Amino acid sequence: MKIFAYGIRKDEEPALQQWVEKHPEVEVDFTDKLLSPETASLAEGADAVNVYQQLDYTRETLTALQEFGITKMSLRNVGIDNIDLDAAREFSFDISNVPVYSPNAIAEHSMIQLSRLLRRTKELDRKIANHDLRWAPTIGREMRMQTVGIIGTGHIGRVAIKILQGFGAKVIAYDKFQNDEIKAEGLYVDSLDELYAQADAISLYVPGVPENHHLIDADAISKMKDGVVLVNVARGNLMDIDAVIAGLDSGKISDFAMDVYEEEVGLFNADWSDKEFPDAKIADLIDRENVLVTPHTAFYTTKAVYEMVTQSMDASLAFINGETPAIAVEY
Amino acid sequence: MKIFAYGIRKDEEPALQQWVEKHPEVEVDFTDKLLSPETASLAEGADAVNVYQQLDYTRETLTALQEFGITKMSLRNVGIDNIDLDAAREFSFDISNVPVYSPNAIAEHSMIQLSRLLRRTKELDRKIANHDLRWAPTIGREMRMQTVGIIGTGHIGRVAIKILQGFGAKVIAYDKFQNDEIKAEGLYVDSLDELYAQADAISLYVPGVPENHHLIDADAISKMKDGVVLVNVARGNLMDIDAVIAGLDSGKISDFAMDVYEEEVGLFNADWSDKEFPDAKIADLIDRENVLVTPHTAFYTTKAVYEMVTQSMDASLAFINGETPAIAVEY
Repeated sequence: MKIFAYGIRKDEEPALQQWVEKHPEVEVDFTDKLLSPETASLAEGADAVNVYQQLDYTRETLTALQEFGITKMSLRNVGIDNIDLDAAREFSFDISNVPVYSPNAIAEHSMIQLSRLLRRTKELDRKIANHDLRWAPTIGREMRMQTVGIIGTGHIGRVAIKILQGFGAKVIAYDKFQNDEIKAEGLYVDSLDELYAQADAISLYVPGVPENHHLIDADAISKMKDGVVLVNVARGNLMDIDAVIAGLDSGKISDFAMDVYEEEVGLFNADWSDKEFPDAKIADLIDRENVLVTPHTAFYTTKAVYEMVTQSMDASLAFINGETPAIAVEY
Repeated sequence: MKIFAYGIRKDEEPALQQWVEKHPEVEVDFTDKLLSPETASLAEGADAVNVYQQLDYTRETLTALQEFGITKMSLRNVGIDNIDLDAAREFSFDISNVPVYSPNAIAEHSMIQLSRLLRRTKELDRKIANHDLRWAPTIGREMRMQTVGIIGTGHIGRVAIKILQGFGAKVIAYDKFQNDEIKAEGLYVDSLDELYAQADAISLYVPGVPENHHLIDADAISKMKDGVVLVNVARGNLMDIDAVIAGLDSGKISDFAMDVYEEEVGLFNADWSDKEFPDAKIADLIDRENVLVTPHTAFYTTKAVYEMVTQSMDASLAFINGETPAIAVEY
């Protein structure tokens, strides 16, 4: 049996190699090319393909695979919105994704960024790079002294809570769907308004579903404490970025870390260093000393990549063996 | 009764103001000038002085205070090595210091710096500042995946352990003087060699006493895992910096954060931005993307400053009331 993997990046190769070594019975071949009607023939002779790309899985692409007898496709990421599901249904494709690869990767990033904002590391880093080694007036704040509001207590929010508790911070949380453990700890407040009123810092871990669109808008910000610190590693559409910028300008928001942005597609994960930067708002935020912008890198750890490769390869093998992996997608 | 405070920095004023408001019975006056034979007269009429400076408290200075009838002196910091204790004894000075102001300030800084090294934030920050928003190949590592060796389990080391446990990291520890709680948790290894052999990252929390001089030297580094991450927020003399630099050059040490340096006096807490930088080793380390240098700022938080001001003012008041505060120095 054979699995062919597309779009394998350098940083995925060690995890793929580890998987191959553990499965001598499986032939594995791979390319750094993405899956398209043109590259589908590379998989000829394989029983399943393993993929990860922003590029659409079109009817043409799925048709090409199916003509090589391949109707098993395991994604190394979570999103399936770029698959032509009508075509997939027509050809009876088995599809799997990796819905949970490392909540810690994202939760850790969010709390590291919060701690950096509190310690004013961007300002201090610049001073030190310029050989100004005076510490005053760049005084830091401690994590343990903060009341941190966690919005969303799923996998990732709960890891963030554990990290905050290790620091000794006070945690308050809000979620429409309460988690029993967090409830037993007594961390929930009754409303977002209550969370806004009490939190020195607020970090988001809710999905970008329509009802959460611009959850953090001018009205929400007006209910927060003066000098609040905001962190968003969840979804760009959770925030009205203009309202956040206005809050930064007025001083209502003292610091802000963002790993996601409503208009990030086509902007993030591209190199603009030699080109005109296409988004003036983000260029301005990148330059501010009380703002940390990262281009959707929170997930990007060796552990996360290991899980994405290993889980998806396991699923590919399960499909070949006629089994239904737990991460098979029902569509 | 009156307390006169010397060397009050802008960032200390809010904490001093809070103390004053809580003690309407005490007259408090202050200056940003340091205490010297020339400025001693500013304290005339006070019952006690409150101080913090690198400048020596010489026989002349103490004589001048004593001539104004002032023999009560409370330091806002820990070190008393710049006081002429013979003179202080002769004039029967009551002296206090602040030995513990915020272990969390220092422990948090050490773990924030470790997490930043693991996430390669210096490299990523530079890319983002240059508008290169590609995440690969700047992949991070997770705190929870590390085995972290903690050398020294006093106040600060124990806070660092709590933070690491919040992240879900595996902690191993070594201290000649074992702490019961850490022992009960089973975190101690039997020797430094064992810690060196197992730890992915190592952070120091031991005092800079002579027997710890160059604890981390070429021999110790040779016993560590390849690609070890080192953090030193404790004392500069714990490390043979040349051995650390050699380890960085060879790749034996993958990343390094330092907040202290054996030769830091006269170098740190000064502005060299318009002058020739006097230490080529530190200039080189500051420029490396896998090294984070901070100029002894780990302690520098609003909470720590609050504690330094409040505890020392409380001690000044206790002395005036004829009491012996718990933080009185026996000398």
